[in-house]
Amino acid sequence: MKSNSWKELRKIDHEVYLLKHVSSLLGWDQETYMPSRGIEERAEQISLLETLIHEKITSEAMKEALEGAKEKPEIEEETGKESLFKPLTPVHRAAFLREWDRRVERARKIPKNLVSRLSYATSVGQAKWAQAKKEASFNLFKPYLEEILILTRELAAALEFKDSPYDPLLDEYEPGMKCAILTPLFEQLRKDLAPMLKEIIATSNVDDTCLYLPFPKEAQHAFGERILNAIGFPWERARLDVSVHPFTSTLGRDDVRITTRYNPTYFPTAIFGIIHEAGHGLYDLGFGDDIRGTILAEGVSLGIHESQSRFWENCIGRHRAFWTYWFPILKNEYLPALEQVPFDTFLKSINRVRPSLIRVEADEVTYPLHILLRYKLEKALIEDTLSLSDLPAAWNDGMEELIGIRPSHDGEGVLQDIHWSMGSFGYFPTYALGTLYAAQFFSSLLKQYPLVLREVEQGKFGTVVQWLKENVHVHGKVFPAEELCRKVSGSSLDSNYFLQYVREKYLH
Amino acid sequence: MKSNSWKELRKIDHEVYLLKHVSSLLGWDQETYMPSRGIEERAEQISLLETLIHEKITSEAMKEALEGAKEKPEIEEETGKESLFKPLTPVHRAAFLREWDRRVERARKIPKNLVSRLSYATSVGQAKWAQAKKEASFNLFKPYLEEILILTRELAAALEFKDSPYDPLLDEYEPGMKCAILTPLFEQLRKDLAPMLKEIIATSNVDDTCLYLPFPKEAQHAFGERILNAIGFPWERARLDVSVHPFTSTLGRDDVRITTRYNPTYFPTAIFGIIHEAGHGLYDLGFGDDIRGTILAEGVSLGIHESQSRFWENCIGRHRAFWTYWFPILKNEYLPALEQVPFDTFLKSINRVRPSLIRVEADEVTYPLHILLRYKLEKALIEDTLSLSDLPAAWNDGMEELIGIRPSHDGEGVLQDIHWSMGSFGYFPTYALGTLYAAQFFSSLLKQYPLVLREVEQGKFGTVVQWLKENVHVHGKVFPAEELCRKVSGSSLDSNYFLQYVREKYLH
Repeated sequence: MKSNSWKELRKIDHEVYLLKHVSSLLGWDQETYMPSRGIEERAEQISLLETLIHEKITSEAMKEALEGAKEKPEIEEETGKESLFKPLTPVHRAAFLREWDRRVERARKIPKNLVSRLSYATSVGQAKWAQAKKEASFNLFKPYLEEILILTRELAAALEFKDSPYDPLLDEYEPGMKCAILTPLFEQLRKDLAPMLKEIIATSNVDDTCLYLPFPKEAQHAFGERILNAIGFPWERARLDVSVHPFTSTLGRDDVRITTRYNPTYFPTAIFGIIHEAGHGLYDLGFGDDIRGTILAEGVSLGIHESQSRFWENCIGRHRAFWTYWFPILKNEYLPALEQVPFDTFLKSINRVRPSLIRVEADEVTYPLHILLRYKLEKALIEDTLSLSDLPAAWNDGMEELIGIRPSHDGEGVLQDIHWSMGSFGYFPTYALGTLYAAQFFSSLLKQYPLVLREVEQGKFGTVVQWLKENVHVHGKVFPAEELCRKVSGSSLDSNYFLQYVREKYLH
Repeated sequence: MKSNSWKELRKIDHEVYLLKHVSSLLGWDQETYMPSRGIEERAEQISLLETLIHEKITSEAMKEALEGAKEKPEIEEETGKESLFKPLTPVHRAAFLREWDRRVERARKIPKNLVSRLSYATSVGQAKWAQAKKEASFNLFKPYLEEILILTRELAAALEFKDSPYDPLLDEYEPGMKCAILTPLFEQLRKDLAPMLKEIIATSNVDDTCLYLPFPKEAQHAFGERILNAIGFPWERARLDVSVHPFTSTLGRDDVRITTRYNPTYFPTAIFGIIHEAGHGLYDLGFGDDIRGTILAEGVSLGIHESQSRFWENCIGRHRAFWTYWFPILKNEYLPALEQVPFDTFLKSINRVRPSLIRVEADEVTYPLHILLRYKLEKALIEDTLSLSDLPAAWNDGMEELIGIRPSHDGEGVLQDIHWSMGSFGYFPTYALGTLYAAQFFSSLLKQYPLVLREVEQGKFGTVVQWLKENVHVHGKVFPAEELCRKVSGSSLDSNYFLQYVREKYLH
């Protein structure tokens, strides 16, 4: 055991932290400003950065430092005044070691050549998927997906598992989550949501042509910026740009960037997109000072991350209280054509619930059902209980059963999402978890601040922002998702909060 | 000697190549889009990238690979078909080894702690310089410059030298150049230019108020883009953005970005700035396919790089032939207020020669004299034959002697440039070398294509672009500057080409 283990560990930790942000800049720039032909070398640059990060995590220096630090969890005397790094508190030290342990262990289990084979297969796979989607032909994509699937099963085996090979994949995105928890949670959700859904759809019909009014890009952007200003989006630490697929990216502890896209004849895309990404952005901007610059300054899981975007987009951004303030501003200053539209029509339009084929266009009620289907299918694929030949039919049957409509071709069915072509098995559930966490957290906020929606009605978000920051953001990765959920809401993740939220909003 | 030396060398070479581009992206983003508070971590990110590059260059793996490759200059059988990299031709192999030898040797000579001490001193130095410049007080900056100077002399000693400690510093920016060549070259230039300058200034007076006409940013940008289009600036591989200090940056083999700034009441800043940076940009976009992705795909020296920007800005962009085509377009489509201005007045205005205090605002004739002063002074500082206490007076005396005017305070005198605060001693001469190379290359072009300016008069740049590409750009770093100059022009660098250019343009 070296005497300077902690110093070394903090150094590698900070280097990995910096390199991840550099890698994020490469990705952000690729989606926003990079000239088109830059893509080839950009892919090489990103791949090299990922390799450098992987090498640091799996290095002998890291292993020794981590082992040394674990034997000697006191830190202050080693880093001290001369160190670049502030000493961690005991709670943070434990979380820091737990998190590094997990990462080093995972990284060391994955054979290097599997990483490069997967990287190659998914790189080819994405191109083939795009082509197959365009031609609405699953068979074009099938052999490439087969290859990705074989390698992903290999990955699951390398990562080791007890119950299902899906568990270690899920764990990558949602640390601590397992099928044994997820399956009953989702099953309960399905069972309770199905009957409610029928009733909601029956009462939810509305003429929503007001959403399709021509609305110039520049005006949409100005309105979006105005909302961001009201939320307190800190421009000196953040940006809003345009990209084909909206995303949030963290490029530095004081540098978080969100993107959106503008559809000049369907403004909800941009407006709710901006509010959604701002939710992600505020999370990454809110990590506590005492963990900034370390591995702990990250979202605890993708599900919790998604809870922040959905909290803002749906619980706040589609709430009557929100538009009580913003609807008059929207129609008076940005979209005069709304003048003729009654407030209630507008509100019903942005909250219209109906069965739809495409996940990313789904409303907040049917959305989780799209995820349930994907979870069931991808779990079966990984467990090898569903063959790829049967996948398209299983998809279509599942859609009919869960949501009540059937795709007419693979392009609007099994081929709609990019995730499998990227090898991202285990990712989809985090979207639904985000929805569930968001509703559970929203319920806690309302319990704690019963009058908070009065503020929202006045265009004020201070209480909401501060509550999320104090209860969720500052903690970063310090508490596992399950523990964080209990701290915030007093109970474990429970789909009843979401069901109650839906009931109150749509069936009151 | 390992058997796979070449393979290893090519791999490290390519990784360094990629990491340099990543570092360029970090710098480009910092100057263009980064939110203001991102700067602190960005500095850490850039510093880490520079460390990683330095570690790769000075690694034992690199040393062994380079030694092995030098003993065994055949390459094909080792890289072959399976290699990621195309085999180099024998000429390129020799250049590749020469270049890496030079870099590894330099990098290994510099003690690591000197790098970090210099980095710290210049980081503080730049802040102090900015403050001192604002307050026009050299004494505020003096102790920090003293420290930088001491460390820079240490650097020169570490790099070793025969004649002057200035030589190894100059060599960093202009490989192969030495005071023994530069001093007589500059002395000749001074001697011959001085009497011509008096005559030119006497005849160069013109009412240049047309340059100060209000010209909205957007219109300036559109006009600049139009010129770039005519030059064939390849937007699929390039960008134009805005920054406080214009620059060109290469972020990938197909990703070169230039910036400019817009002054709404003095358009030459943006227009000639864009043409200038486009010259740099075309160089980096024009490296031959057979050297792309290697260390050879870089400008051979800063002097040659600057020759490309000055060739475009001055030899072409300020030429009567250029504006014969563009003046009517400018006044008819972009700046109607020019209607009343005779063509000759406009042309004389953009070529007006007069003594001025600030280098970056100087005309093309007096510009080299600004450099001659800086060369003389910084060389004396490094050689310790001029004390810092005497520097401001030496500056003012030199200005009076060379250019005929005297600064009234340090802000417009010795404190005007950032370079010394960055520790960039040896950089200034490359600006004057660029001017000289540009005139010499322009003379070759006219000799080879006597009618090329007729094309320029018609807004066509195909011959100019192609000639520069074939004669300069494709070669990258394959030939040293001196050899390249002889290849392009048939003779070594000679200030008579510039003197002749000035004589013909201004004293015909």
